[in-house]
Formats: sequence, structure tokens, C-alpha cells
Amino acid sequence: MSLVIGVDFGTLSGRAVVVRVSDGAELGSAVHAYAHGVVEKHLPGQEDKPLPPDWALQVPQDYLDVLRHAVPEALRAAGADPADVIGLATDFTACTVLPTLEDGTPLSELDAFKDRPHAYIKLWKHHAAQPQADRITEVAAKRGEAWLRRYGGLISSEWEFAKALQVLEEDPEVWAATRYWVEAADWIVWRMTGVYLRNACTAGYKGQFVDGQYPSPAYLAELNPDFSDFPETRLDAPIGQLGQAAGTLTEEAAAWMGLHTGVVVAVGNVDAHVSAPAAQAVEPGQLVAIMGTSTCHVMSGDVLREVPGMCGVVDGGIVPGLWGYEAGQSGVGDIFGWFVENSTLGHEELSELAARQPVGAHGLIALDWHSGNRSPLVDHELSGVIIGQTLATRPEDQYRALIEATAYGTRLIIETFRNSGVEVNELIVTGGLQKNALLMQIYADVTRMPISLLDSDQGPALGSALHAAVAAGAYPDIRAAAAAMGRRVQGAWTPDEANADRYDALYAEYQTLVDYFGRHGNDVMRRLRKIRREALR
Amino acid sequence: MSLVIGVDFGTLSGRAVVVRVSDGAELGSAVHAYAHGVVEKHLPGQEDKPLPPDWALQVPQDYLDVLRHAVPEALRAAGADPADVIGLATDFTACTVLPTLEDGTPLSELDAFKDRPHAYIKLWKHHAAQPQADRITEVAAKRGEAWLRRYGGLISSEWEFAKALQVLEEDPEVWAATRYWVEAADWIVWRMTGVYLRNACTAGYKGQFVDGQYPSPAYLAELNPDFSDFPETRLDAPIGQLGQAAGTLTEEAAAWMGLHTGVVVAVGNVDAHVSAPAAQAVEPGQLVAIMGTSTCHVMSGDVLREVPGMCGVVDGGIVPGLWGYEAGQSGVGDIFGWFVENSTLGHEELSELAARQPVGAHGLIALDWHSGNRSPLVDHELSGVIIGQTLATRPEDQYRALIEATAYGTRLIIETFRNSGVEVNELIVTGGLQKNALLMQIYADVTRMPISLLDSDQGPALGSALHAAVAAGAYPDIRAAAAAMGRRVQGAWTPDEANADRYDALYAEYQTLVDYFGRHGNDVMRRLRKIRREALR
Repeated sequence: MSLVIGVDFGTLSGRAVVVRVSDGAELGSAVHAYAHGVVEKHLPGQEDKPLPPDWALQVPQDYLDVLRHAVPEALRAAGADPADVIGLATDFTACTVLPTLEDGTPLSELDAFKDRPHAYIKLWKHHAAQPQADRITEVAAKRGEAWLRRYGGLISSEWEFAKALQVLEEDPEVWAATRYWVEAADWIVWRMTGVYLRNACTAGYKGQFVDGQYPSPAYLAELNPDFSDFPETRLDAPIGQLGQAAGTLTEEAAAWMGLHTGVVVAVGNVDAHVSAPAAQAVEPGQLVAIMGTSTCHVMSGDVLREVPGMCGVVDGGIVPGLWGYEAGQSGVGDIFGWFVENSTLGHEELSELAARQPVGAHGLIALDWHSGNRSPLVDHELSGVIIGQTLATRPEDQYRALIEATAYGTRLIIETFRNSGVEVNELIVTGGLQKNALLMQIYADVTRMPISLLDSDQGPALGSALHAAVAAGAYPDIRAAAAAMGRRVQGAWTPDEANADRYDALYAEYQTLVDYFGRHGNDVMRRLRKIRREALR
Repeated sequence: MSLVIGVDFGTLSGRAVVVRVSDGAELGSAVHAYAHGVVEKHLPGQEDKPLPPDWALQVPQDYLDVLRHAVPEALRAAGADPADVIGLATDFTACTVLPTLEDGTPLSELDAFKDRPHAYIKLWKHHAAQPQADRITEVAAKRGEAWLRRYGGLISSEWEFAKALQVLEEDPEVWAATRYWVEAADWIVWRMTGVYLRNACTAGYKGQFVDGQYPSPAYLAELNPDFSDFPETRLDAPIGQLGQAAGTLTEEAAAWMGLHTGVVVAVGNVDAHVSAPAAQAVEPGQLVAIMGTSTCHVMSGDVLREVPGMCGVVDGGIVPGLWGYEAGQSGVGDIFGWFVENSTLGHEELSELAARQPVGAHGLIALDWHSGNRSPLVDHELSGVIIGQTLATRPEDQYRALIEATAYGTRLIIETFRNSGVEVNELIVTGGLQKNALLMQIYADVTRMPISLLDSDQGPALGSALHAAVAAGAYPDIRAAAAAMGRRVQGAWTPDEANADRYDALYAEYQTLVDYFGRHGNDVMRRLRKIRREALR
């Protein structure tokens, strides 16, 4: 019985799952929390030196501890013989990135730099590089850099270039000591195998690696003359395709986990993207929505199209040989959470009351822009709206209207794909919100699409395990592995035709309001932000 | 020492106040609750016969009990000698109206009709005559009836004609037995004096008595052939001007109250309108806002103008010799109440938190249409909006935005007056909301006007007392009485210039949204109502 191990590195902990190669059965799992969690206030042991706002760091050792603890525990929980393990793969948050020496040693582990914040891992949600990101976008737009369109016209402060430029400009000594600027997704694989490959997914989505090239030195020099050689001097590693073997375990790494050195380790990957094959979404047109506080949409396509407001389109970004599209809704579950926080009722009570009402009975329509809009408007100055309140409006009415607004937001993304010539045939939901029956039915009705589910509580780890099986040669490719090991409940939710008809009318109202508030019919939201900033100055 | 008595008949109780004629000092007061309150579920003693929705009736005897109990108690509380009382006046809710015999006996007091709902007093908030009101407006608009413009183009279901037409069409026997269709404001005076006069205020605002004429028989016949003679057969009483003496107390009425028959009783009046002289607002341009769950605006003017969205403009409707303008905001305090009902915080906590923030800091703008918009849009299909919510938006931010929205609504009414050529120079606030310091400062800042207050908790009763003094001849006219007896704290709140500048910017946004949502830029609110009605069908 061949086994593989998937390890999913999240924001606060890592999870290992032992999976049977033949059918994807999850035999055992274990979670290990990061000792340092998210480092936001101060570096370990430096309580007297507070970090500035919007910083979010991590400590490399915490990741290795997941390998040391969660993997052996998962093996024990599975009652597995380590000798049966043929492969291991990982997925990571992204862009989570760190500076290393030539051999992969994190600068934060050197005595010379251990008290320097910029030597540490910058977690995906480190947002302090916004000024750099703004310049990266502005200069690219001004110069008409073609690659900018692949990212919907906006480079995020979360990504590799913005975070790197912040180091260069704020701590030149750390920058000078940096040999490689490494995605944690690749660093963990490097640590296990001794091989450093940049995976195609993060290189494309987070590293602006487009059609085999990074942004030009001339462009980078306009950002900062010392930045012009960044790709050449710090990103210069070969690209690894997803599902490819990076190498086998070193003796040291095998010992950490109680495994043998014959275990094949796959190229690194990203939590959202690795979920797609776990849900058997490997064909063009299968849109996977990973739904939690926000929603990430990933989908493969066989054509390259410039779709407005994309997070990115990357060659082999999800499945080698296909274009990987990524889109996003910047606020979903966190909007519901915000509403509940200020309500006299909880999620369950609100959901139950909201489920009793016919579509349209609350007389409300909302815009789901409380965290701005990522796709397709790419505008974080936008904000939430609710229209139609009367003295008879109850909390459950507003709660339902907010859920519906996020469903309209998903439909808008689907229609944007279709209008750009990229087919969308199926909606597959994974993540915590798939457990909300009211929400799932609303999404089916609003999108008029049957909704399938990834039938696992640990989708990313299962997706990693599947990649491990491919890397180890158990399956010829990701498609074959997905067919055997992936798990999808097809058509778990189907649209109700009468509800869908009513939602068509409401979605038409949503579209009109999107144009008015989001496409410069009335820029009141941007002006309100400006007034707010001035008032708080 | 001459004394007068003001009696204010509210929705649930009546209040008597004994006032010194020389200076308006309130010497004593008493309240008496109506035994039957508002009759909404069933007639007294008829638990098995539920009333239909939207009905609201009252029982005439309850009003007389106020005279019997509250007046003597107020005299005792004041330590007054009844022989010193020279006058008495009343004010009432309106339009509150009843059918009577030739001698003023309410039909509901006859054995033949005591179990007939249409024989009872229809309280102002009886809204079951909406179908009749709709036809009254439609037919008038179709025929181009000039008087319709005096009412902002809309006749309310609350008014005399709609309520009368409902009786005619739903209980012809009661209609046939009706000699007079009497405002309660006039009925109470008739009961005390034996004299029936229709006061100019309700005849104009509620009875469509315009330029000395009622709507024509030809118009009324189009509503219902049997309605053509309504004014001639059931409204045929002389008009009494405000502050005029209707008569003196009958022996019976004097005995009820422990007064003498020389006490002069003034022509009836309305609670909102009678407040204006109490606040010394008797000159053109002094706008009085009576602020509670909703706001009623009354103001005198020396020119007749057709102002869009007025509730009515009536010759001598507030002060004889001037045009009395009335406007309204259909939702104010009840919007704040609605928000608090569904919030984890109360009014005081929200006000305190909201008061701490600079103008514009919440980044929100709201429309105050949760109960529709009375003036100037006259559209009850409109609804509330809030724009600018983020995950950082707190309940106190939204609470403040709702208060501001009602202030913008007041400014819109003021600007509508001015744009129509009617001057507005001063804003005087009375009613429960004048105690909210946050709200008062916001209103001053938003309107850029100093706000004066009616310095009494019993403004209407004081206003009535003032009219009693005029009727009794103690003052030559209402102006003189107001100067001596009225009480105004002038400039209690003054605008902060910096705040006012910020609010100008926000009010500009409000105006743009009023045009978009309220003036057919996007009729989404009306469509949402329609969708709601269909969903609940």
C-alpha cells in the first residue's frame, strides 16, 4: 500500500495528512501550531522595539517544527508504516517570502541580523510595502509595461517585488546580504531536498514572471537604481513545474520526520491553487472558489485572455499545460463576521431566520465592497452599500442581503470571464463557508450553476498529497491523480429555477449599482475615503 | 392675576397646563390617559370582531374625561383660584375626525351604531383609507385640479376626504346618518361652548379648503357620485380663525372642570401648528421643527408660493394674516430607534461614542428614507441607504450617519423653500429630540443656521394657553401674546464653521444621491418594493 504525505502551511499552523495513493483516502492527520504565530508587535525577545503598523513576520524554525511534529504524528494517527511513504508535497500561503544566504540559510538566523526585522520572513499579510507597490504599479502603467495587464493592472503590496523593494529601501544592509529572495513555498522544499527551484505558481502570480521573463532592468531602475538587477541577482533559480519532483529527502530531513531518504518531494505550491486538483478541477472551465473570510477563485483555461480585474494569469499556474487564472473577492466571510459582531443575533440564528424568507422579500440590495473590490474592479477605495432599508427591516434581512451581495460578486466574476472569452462551466466550492446551507443555495440560485464541493476538510493538504503522488511517479500527471485521488461531490447544490428568475432581476440591479458606484458613475466612495482621511489627519 | 388653560390632546393622553397670562409662566399641569387608548384590535366589548389592518380609532368620551380630570388637577397643582381663569384653548392631533348628529352627538354613542367601527373617531394614524386617498390624488391630477399643488401633489390617506370616502363606501348607513364630519379639534370646542366652528388650520391642511372653496362637486362625483355633495352636506360650518373666541363655557362644561361660565374658549387648533407661537415663531421665515419620531415643519410666510413637496400651504394656517407652510420628514427619531433596536448599544452609549469623532471621520453617507420621503419628494416607495461601510465601521459611525442624514433632509427642505422664493431665516426646534446635544450640534452645522429652542416640555399646551389669552382679549393678537408668553432660547446652538465646511461637502454628496435615488436617476428602490410585494404575495 503506497502512501503520500501532504503538508499544508497556513497562517498560524501547519497540517500534515497521510493519504493512500490508490484512492486518496485520508488515513491520518495532525496539526502543529507555529510557536511564534504571526510576529506583528515585536521580534522575539525584543519587546522594547515595537514593529511599525501593517507588519506581519514569521520565524523559519516554526515551519521546520511542523515537519518534525505534525508529520510523525500524522503517520502514527494513520497507523502507517513510514516505509510505505513514496512521496511528500507541501503547499504554502503566498506571497510569503524571505531573504537567504547562498545555501538557503535565512538571514534572521544569523547573529548579525537576528534583531533586524527585514531579515525575517514577510508573511502574505505584511502590508507595509504599500508605498513600494503603488510605485511599482504607477511606473509600469506609465511605461506601458505589457505584463501589467496579466495582473489586472495592479501589483499588490503583498507580492515579491514590493516586499523586496521595501527591504532595499529600508534596510540596505539586509538587502546587501541577501543572496536569494525566496518564497517560503520553495524554501521548505529546499530545506527538505537541498534543491532550490522556484515553483511556476508563485513565480508567475507573485513574482511577475511572465512569458519566461521578469520585468526589465530599465523598468526596475526607474523604481530604484539599485533595484535594476533584482531578478538577476536574487531570483535566479530554475523554475519547477507543479507536480514535478524537486528531489528526495536529505538524511537530515528524513530524520526529522521519521521517513526514509527515498521519499520524493514535489515542487512547492500554494494553498488555494493546490486545492483545484483535490476537487478534480483540472479541466478548462472548472472554477474553484476557496471561500473563507475572503474568496479566491482559481480556474484553468486553454486560451490566454486578458480578463479585466484578474489577480493573475500564469502559464501552468495550476495545472502544467494550461493557463491558470486567479481572481478574488476581497471580502466575504469577514463581511458576515463584521455584521454579526455588531448584531444582537449570532450567525446560526441569523441564517435560520434568513432562510425562511422568499427571495426578494427583504426588499434590500447590497454591494459587497466592505474590503474594497478585488475582481473585477481592482479598487480598494470602494466600500459597502445597503439600499432599501425600512423600519420593518430586520437583522436577518440585512444578513441575507450581504450573503446575496457576495453571490452577485461571484456571478460578476464569472460573467467577466465569459465576456472575455474564457469559459466557466462549473462552480466548485471549498473552504469553511461550504458548510453554510443558506449561502450555498443562494450561490447556486444566483449563478444558475450547480455547485460541487471538495469533499474534504483538509482540501489543500489533500491537494498536496496528490501532487506528491504525481512527483513520485504513481500517476502520469495531475489529471490522472485528480481522477483517482481527488474528491468532489458533484451537484451538491442545484439552482431553483423560480429563485434564479427572481435573482436575475436583483442581479440586474446589482450590475447597475456596480457601474454607478464602481465604474465612475458617482465616485462618492472615493471622496468619502478622502474626507475620512482628512478628518482623521 | 389672570390665568389661562391650555389643553393638548395627544395620541394616548391629554395634558392640561395652567399658565399666567402676564408672562406665560407654567404654574401647574396634569395628564390624563385615554381609557381606551388607540382602538386598533376591536371595538370596546367586541373582542370577537377584530378590526382590519391599518385601522386606528378613538372613543369621544375619553377626550371629555381629560377635561373632567386633567383640568381640575392642573388647577390644584398650580394652587390656582378658578375664578382667575379667563380663557381656555385646545390643540389636537390631526386629522382626527368623527361623524356626528346635528347637535354634535358622536354616532358611536348611539345604540344603533355603537357596534359599527365607521361610527367611531378615526385617529390621525388610521391608514385604511389608502385606496380612497390614491383615487383622490389620481382623479385630481388627471383633471388638473389647481388645489392639488397646494398639497405638494398628494392627498394623504390620513386626511378628511379619504377617511370620509371610506365611510361612504364601506358603511353607507353610517354615512347616511352623518350630519357633520367633524375634526376632533373642533368637536371638543363645540362640546365646551355649544358652538361649531371649523378652525382654519385643519380646514385648510386636512380638509382641502383652498381660497374659500372645497373641491368641486364635479370632481367629487368622479370619485363617487354619492360623494359630490360632501362639503355642502357635511362640512357646512363657518370657519374660525386661530386665536378667535369660539364662545364661552356652557354650564355643563364649566361644571366638568370646576370653572365658571365666563371662561372664553378659543377656536380649535393642531398640536404642531400651535407650537409655533409658543416658540415666538410668528414672523415670516421662522421655521419651527417639531422633532420626535418624525419631524413636522411649520413656518409662516408673507408670500404664497408653490413649494415642491409641501404638506400644505394655508391662509392663516398658523398665524392669521400670513400663509402657513407645513412640510415634513416622515422618519427621524424612529430611524434612530430602529437602529438601536437591532444594535448591541443603546442611544446614550452610541451618542457619546459618535460625539467623539470629527465630522466625516466615519466615511459614511446615508439617506433618511426608511419611512419614505414626505418633503420634498412625496414618495413613500423610497427607502433607506447607507454608503461607505468597511470592516472598520462601528455602530456609532452608522448611528451618527443616520442623524446626519436627517439633518441633510432638513437642509433639503430649507433649500427647497428658499429656491421657491420663501425665505427661511431661523430654525427653532421643539419636541423630544431637542434634548440630544449631538443631534442639535449636527443640525446647526449642517444647516449653517443658529438653532433656537422652545424652552418648555409642554410646547403645544403652552401654545394653546397663548391662544386662550388672545381669545379672551388679554392680548390684541397672537404676535403680542407670543412676545409676552412665548419662550424661546435664542441661538442655543450655533454652527461651527469648520464643521459646516466639511458638511457642505457631504451635503453635496447627499444631494447627488437624492437626485439619483429619489428623482428617477435609478428607480431601484421602487423596483425593490415591487419585488418585495411579489415575493410576499
